[in-house]
Amino acid sequence: MRTQTQTDPNLRRELARIVGDNQVLAGPEAGPYTHDATIQRGLSAKPDAVVRPADDQEIVAVLEWCYSHGVAIVPRGGGTGLAGGAVAVRGGVICSLERLNRVLGIEPQSWCMSVQAGVSTAHVKRVARENGLIFPPDPGAAEQSQIGGNVATNAAGPHAFKYGPTGAWVTGVDAALAPGRLASFGGTLRKDVCGYDIRSLLVGSEGTLGIITAVGLRLAPAPQLALGLVAFLDGLDSGARTVLELIGSGLQPAVLDFLDGTALAATGATLPGPVPQGAGFALLIELDGDTGEVERQLAELEEVLHSNGALAVLRPDAAELWRWRSTVNGAIAAQRGGKISEDICVPVQHLARASAEIHQIGANHGLPACAWGHAGDGIIHATFMVDLASPEQLKAALRAAEQVFELALELGGSVTGEHGIGWVKRGYMERQYGPGALDAHRRIKQALDPKGLLNPEKKDC
Amino acid sequence: MRTQTQTDPNLRRELARIVGDNQVLAGPEAGPYTHDATIQRGLSAKPDAVVRPADDQEIVAVLEWCYSHGVAIVPRGGGTGLAGGAVAVRGGVICSLERLNRVLGIEPQSWCMSVQAGVSTAHVKRVARENGLIFPPDPGAAEQSQIGGNVATNAAGPHAFKYGPTGAWVTGVDAALAPGRLASFGGTLRKDVCGYDIRSLLVGSEGTLGIITAVGLRLAPAPQLALGLVAFLDGLDSGARTVLELIGSGLQPAVLDFLDGTALAATGATLPGPVPQGAGFALLIELDGDTGEVERQLAELEEVLHSNGALAVLRPDAAELWRWRSTVNGAIAAQRGGKISEDICVPVQHLARASAEIHQIGANHGLPACAWGHAGDGIIHATFMVDLASPEQLKAALRAAEQVFELALELGGSVTGEHGIGWVKRGYMERQYGPGALDAHRRIKQALDPKGLLNPEKKDC
Repeated sequence: MRTQTQTDPNLRRELARIVGDNQVLAGPEAGPYTHDATIQRGLSAKPDAVVRPADDQEIVAVLEWCYSHGVAIVPRGGGTGLAGGAVAVRGGVICSLERLNRVLGIEPQSWCMSVQAGVSTAHVKRVARENGLIFPPDPGAAEQSQIGGNVATNAAGPHAFKYGPTGAWVTGVDAALAPGRLASFGGTLRKDVCGYDIRSLLVGSEGTLGIITAVGLRLAPAPQLALGLVAFLDGLDSGARTVLELIGSGLQPAVLDFLDGTALAATGATLPGPVPQGAGFALLIELDGDTGEVERQLAELEEVLHSNGALAVLRPDAAELWRWRSTVNGAIAAQRGGKISEDICVPVQHLARASAEIHQIGANHGLPACAWGHAGDGIIHATFMVDLASPEQLKAALRAAEQVFELALELGGSVTGEHGIGWVKRGYMERQYGPGALDAHRRIKQALDPKGLLNPEKKDC
Repeated sequence: MRTQTQTDPNLRRELARIVGDNQVLAGPEAGPYTHDATIQRGLSAKPDAVVRPADDQEIVAVLEWCYSHGVAIVPRGGGTGLAGGAVAVRGGVICSLERLNRVLGIEPQSWCMSVQAGVSTAHVKRVARENGLIFPPDPGAAEQSQIGGNVATNAAGPHAFKYGPTGAWVTGVDAALAPGRLASFGGTLRKDVCGYDIRSLLVGSEGTLGIITAVGLRLAPAPQLALGLVAFLDGLDSGARTVLELIGSGLQPAVLDFLDGTALAATGATLPGPVPQGAGFALLIELDGDTGEVERQLAELEEVLHSNGALAVLRPDAAELWRWRSTVNGAIAAQRGGKISEDICVPVQHLARASAEIHQIGANHGLPACAWGHAGDGIIHATFMVDLASPEQLKAALRAAEQVFELALELGGSVTGEHGIGWVKRGYMERQYGPGALDAHRRIKQALDPKGLLNPEKKDC
């Protein structure tokens, strides 16, 4: 993977005129910017330069320079992406948003705040909390990931079951667009049907249509109470049936996550409470709302759980449950040292079938597998455990992952429910979408990035 | 306003080959299709033909024919729009969706349904209710308006305060795109970040990017209880202050509508309960949820109302309250026989100032005015009452409306929060948006409708 864009010999010098000498990195200094969280699978690429602009004006100037010189530009947030979206696979300039880290304003009375793109997701959540409100989206790596990256990938997480993904909380997006101008879409107005919803178009566009420089966010009043539960079932079939019944019952838990038997075995030792004998499936649930509402939901929930043969129901402290939940990823990886994990989404009624087939695919490649994720949303983290020191195991896992994508498509699902297409899932959009949708997708890319320099090769553009 | 597109002499004959002789209307038969709900302000235009396709395949064929012959095509739902979006202001072919009136499927267990675009909004709501669920959006004229039109305008209504506008409930859109192909965007999957969010781009695009043929909708469990309230304050200032405090308190009523003193005087006689002496502002509120939650909210709500000097609080049956609310529009029009009413959106903190200035603008033009709408969302129906038989009054009201749009822009608001730009608000997008956003808007229009034949002159394209 080498750059196919023309690298201007003066590139670094000219970029330094825009952002300052200290803010153009190359060589070893650019090392941390050569990869994101896909480094496990071996993805990395050297950019021609990394720039760290101070503000949106500098970003526009950098974009303008790149655009007029035919140089690719790759926006980068916290580098926690799981699809290779922030890797400069064709070289060019990485535009890091890290210095745009200011909270621009918060209006607790009208439940909104605006922040620059480089503010960490955890900081957004903290500021909201300090003002008696919540920012519900909770993708992983909140301390490292940046809100701009979350918006650009429409990142989700467990609480998206009730609260929706990041995009559901974005009221406005400021972006640098090609060939080099700033534009604002939306703001803090609660309703506006004047123009096209370009804000939503930029959400999840993975830096291929523009560089998000700031966002307006909606916040919500904190619920009175959040109650955590872990329910154990004997296996995939009873577990998946319980999920369907819970959804059909009209209950609206904030979280409805699952671990299959293998994932449970890998992580159960540190779970805040005992795993009962015979447990082959766990549901991680949060009920929130005011006290009475939570109590009513709890009674209904327990009825559904027991009528489906739940082996036990724990009620850990919700905060403790989610702290443990954040260790699940690492605990599964620790089984063999590493893992290849995807994020397919399937219609919820296919949860059991898809999870079973993931194990079969793993077995066919001689790899232990597990399925876990956001059951209520049909998101399965299809995981193959590998020893990263073994190139054969890694290759086998990548082949297995391809079969998982095929499986998702067969079941009417998506190859990516949360992480994005990035570089890792290139080529799949054509398979998932019909020719009409794909054509519209490409026409929009062409309209907003006619030279194809914004994060090239990503998002199947 | 006459067509500037080339009218092919064989137009009707060739269209009849696609949709059948009986489904091509012209002359007097096309009469009902010459206008929408903006007929009050005199807007009407004769199309070259009206076609009523039977299905999406026929729509694509009609679009393809129009596109290859340079003929404008104007999609039309129930004709209840308030911005002239369905009027063929430059002639061409009106494509009525009325025969696409089938419910394609409903899955109550997973809270979703899919329907053709021509199904009435009221029918969507009925089918949801029959399955123990609700479809919350409630724009006016539900029996006449079609869901496709609601999606194409992102129509809202009182319950949007809690539940969001129509677009918040759309999981998928099927559309006929230029130059003539079907495309599906989204579906019933709960999460998918594979492609750009073109579904959201089509929501609210007013038929200028494609013709919506079917939509997938999300539904919700019906709340246990919905409680209606009417609170009276002495005037705009106390009323608007109460609105701000209610929002800031963290209460989440389903509806937070308002009527100013003039609107209240015009409609109060039939209100389900007595209007107290000295009332100059009314809040129409609905609390919903489970019984305990509603009770808790009610206690907090009453505290805020009383601390702001509410003169009285009625608790009419919610269904009765909304039946009465649906008569408000007509009752205000009845004051002088007609009205010109707009739908600006302002930051909620400017509710009192904007409403007061609307009265001032009316007075400057010798017209009685009132302000009412969705207070919680900052939507003000700025209304000037006129005798429709007086061309002078109508002209004055249209001039006053222009000043209302200026007012909205001055306050950082939108010229349209609910109804769309259509034809009525042409020219304002450039004023409301900066050059960057406007340029992106136009590039997208150009990408998806390079010949500019999809609902020309609408949405400022």
